[in-house]
Amino acid sequence: MAKIIDLPRNEAGIEAALAELGPRFGTRFNTGQALRAQHGHTTTWLRNQAPDAVIFVHSTEEVQEIVRACSRHRVPVIAFGAGSSLEGHLNASAGGISIDFSQMNRILKVNAEDMDVVIEPGVTRKALNSHLRDTGLFFPVDPGADATLGGMAATGASGTNAVRYGTMKENILGLKAVLPSGEVIKTAARARKTSAGYDLTHLMVGSEGTLGLITELTLRLRGIPAAISAATCSFETVEAACQCVIATIQYGLPVARIELVDALMVGAVNRYAKLNLPETPLLLLEFHGTETGVSEDAATFGEIAAEFGGTGFAATTREEERNKLWQARHDAYWAGLALRPGAKGISTDICVPVSRLAEALTRAEARAAELNMIAPVVGHVGDGNFHVLMLIDTDNPAEIELAEAYVAWLNEMAIEMEGTCTGEHGIGQGKAAYLVRELGPEAMDVMATIKRGIDPQNIFNPGKMGLPNYG
Amino acid sequence: MAKIIDLPRNEAGIEAALAELGPRFGTRFNTGQALRAQHGHTTTWLRNQAPDAVIFVHSTEEVQEIVRACSRHRVPVIAFGAGSSLEGHLNASAGGISIDFSQMNRILKVNAEDMDVVIEPGVTRKALNSHLRDTGLFFPVDPGADATLGGMAATGASGTNAVRYGTMKENILGLKAVLPSGEVIKTAARARKTSAGYDLTHLMVGSEGTLGLITELTLRLRGIPAAISAATCSFETVEAACQCVIATIQYGLPVARIELVDALMVGAVNRYAKLNLPETPLLLLEFHGTETGVSEDAATFGEIAAEFGGTGFAATTREEERNKLWQARHDAYWAGLALRPGAKGISTDICVPVSRLAEALTRAEARAAELNMIAPVVGHVGDGNFHVLMLIDTDNPAEIELAEAYVAWLNEMAIEMEGTCTGEHGIGQGKAAYLVRELGPEAMDVMATIKRGIDPQNIFNPGKMGLPNYG
Repeated sequence: MAKIIDLPRNEAGIEAALAELGPRFGTRFNTGQALRAQHGHTTTWLRNQAPDAVIFVHSTEEVQEIVRACSRHRVPVIAFGAGSSLEGHLNASAGGISIDFSQMNRILKVNAEDMDVVIEPGVTRKALNSHLRDTGLFFPVDPGADATLGGMAATGASGTNAVRYGTMKENILGLKAVLPSGEVIKTAARARKTSAGYDLTHLMVGSEGTLGLITELTLRLRGIPAAISAATCSFETVEAACQCVIATIQYGLPVARIELVDALMVGAVNRYAKLNLPETPLLLLEFHGTETGVSEDAATFGEIAAEFGGTGFAATTREEERNKLWQARHDAYWAGLALRPGAKGISTDICVPVSRLAEALTRAEARAAELNMIAPVVGHVGDGNFHVLMLIDTDNPAEIELAEAYVAWLNEMAIEMEGTCTGEHGIGQGKAAYLVRELGPEAMDVMATIKRGIDPQNIFNPGKMGLPNYG
Repeated sequence: MAKIIDLPRNEAGIEAALAELGPRFGTRFNTGQALRAQHGHTTTWLRNQAPDAVIFVHSTEEVQEIVRACSRHRVPVIAFGAGSSLEGHLNASAGGISIDFSQMNRILKVNAEDMDVVIEPGVTRKALNSHLRDTGLFFPVDPGADATLGGMAATGASGTNAVRYGTMKENILGLKAVLPSGEVIKTAARARKTSAGYDLTHLMVGSEGTLGLITELTLRLRGIPAAISAATCSFETVEAACQCVIATIQYGLPVARIELVDALMVGAVNRYAKLNLPETPLLLLEFHGTETGVSEDAATFGEIAAEFGGTGFAATTREEERNKLWQARHDAYWAGLALRPGAKGISTDICVPVSRLAEALTRAEARAAELNMIAPVVGHVGDGNFHVLMLIDTDNPAEIELAEAYVAWLNEMAIEMEGTCTGEHGIGQGKAAYLVRELGPEAMDVMATIKRGIDPQNIFNPGKMGLPNYG
């Protein structure tokens, strides 16, 4: 297993906090082994570090109450949404209390005229969009998992349609957060834009629960498009597919999604879903707009793709056929896992400037093959972000070691290409070692200064993001 | 004149810093009265607070050298771009050194495939777009003034086409900044998206020179649209115009610009430019896309406008005619000033949720009329942001007092409507009193904590943004 550090536990403080909060929260306070382990994490290859208790909260005031008790006793507090973090964000490195926000999931106000919505952090993106259906509006950020929006904000999540609609960073107008002191801040007014003071909204978004616990979010919404078209096209090489992506975006085609599935993954899908796609890199696109607009866009893409040797171009606006065209992408995760039954799928997350994408992808595939790793790839290629799904026997230390070396090599390559080790999964524990390589010690010092200033006792999610372990 | 505070000056330190830096920078070091006064500010009704010296810098290393000297001597440092700040950001409240970035204006690298550009902070937006012309790309943020991009970043500027392309916040991929310690940080990789660590990019953007001096910017670029259409339409009332704006945006029409000119301003333009427009609220729009697309968009807007009683709808894609249609907007500032020759034009900057815009505008106009103020209005109405141009005799204390009371009333109204006192001009000195009203003392405490942590001596632009005056 990957090496992660157990930080010193404040046993007396933890005992006191549990004694205080247990009676207060009754059945919403839990110390059962299974629930605690599940709140450490379940989605990574990192060793589990379970919290000492899990509390299901219902209001900002309850969060404040827990934080004040934990501050008094110097006990760690870790925010938990849906548990879909991929980098060990939820592990309790020094023990402490996991605050589970899943029951704090009210949609407080839909402001349809303003195209925004005010929600509690435990609302999941699917629940939100299902609630919004009749308004003609939707929330666009889609990381795949049905994560909570609080968790998505805390990790700066994105997904397949960031190329059109942006990431969580571009889609949060403001938020409320409980600080380590127990105080609540509001980061921004509900106006569509603002130049009022330091941008505390963006400071909290992506801070992974280390600075504040998000208890309310105001999100930007978009109009549900009148029509959606899907298009797919196969390419001889990753290079040709990437050149086609660059040309498509430079042309100004308003793609809503542009995904790449690599040859290995196409083969996996063929076997998994009994399809018959050419086992070469496949691009999948979606356009959002008017019926005629999206049909034209798809056709224009077909012409661009042909210039780069694209074959088997297909496009449609009908929902059933769209789903069929996109099946290779929808089935990718499970089809990938089926390449090696019993193995665990561990995802990398580098993001590079699009001009370097072909090279990055080609080298990533070649290196995995050299190491005899089975590692299919899917990519949000419009943004330069792709995931290598490493299929690993996590009971085999030699394989873990090999995979870790691969991840290190991959992240270094991304950084050399002026890219990042994480496009959308965050740093957590898993990538802490790479952040300083990417941004340098001076930037890390600024982060540490902010962390110390806002959380002088280091009680909010300690041991994450490569921040110092003080307190 | 508006009341602003002179902070205590560190005379001995200032003298020592000047003695050290003068010989070092030779002719690029200036202490002339006129130049110093011009580097305080020239665009507000605030009293001028001139720096003690102005230094024209050419490199990050020079900025570091100045900052290190000023840190050693505890002397304030104020960054200066084009001097187009509207809220007294540039005033030297405790004296000190103004670093003029206007000669640090190289375009370092155009990455056309990645649609980004790396520049020094003294590049102006017009210079950048003129340099980019042959690449088919452009930088979209347009605040009117030909500001430097470093200044636009520092104040979180935007302008007429934020509704389509976003503000500076959405268009900066990363930056380099010199800290009060003299160290340089890089805030992000050049990737299109990132979840790597605290969002130091957004922390620096809009921090008004109080945390770091921006010495390099990586900006997102967009494709120059194949076609542009302009459309205008008159409305009986501000209410009808605003309802039309809401309907247009909800319909999903991809407006690039949507501006309102109020009845008083239309009258001003009629007289100034010898036009014959109906003296009622006027909407002006621009659409960017393909030739057929933008023509359809403009026509669709015409249909929506008709539903709200719009009259005199006109649209065109030809450049000369477009400029004619938009003349009322282009001439607004000078036409507005001509309403009261000799008066100074002072602009407000509130931004409210779009659902409250009609009410906010109507009340703002009515209140100005009650006070016998001549105060025409232009608005970036797609974002809910509008500017009341108060025409003031700044030599008349009674008028100043009245106008200040109006600004206070307007900002309070915006805050009550869940809006902000500043959509795009920033806080500076002029709006310091409103920031705490808008976000609350808890958020201000967080800002002060960050400021103290990063700038323990309070040498970077002290006395701004309502931050505490320590050090």
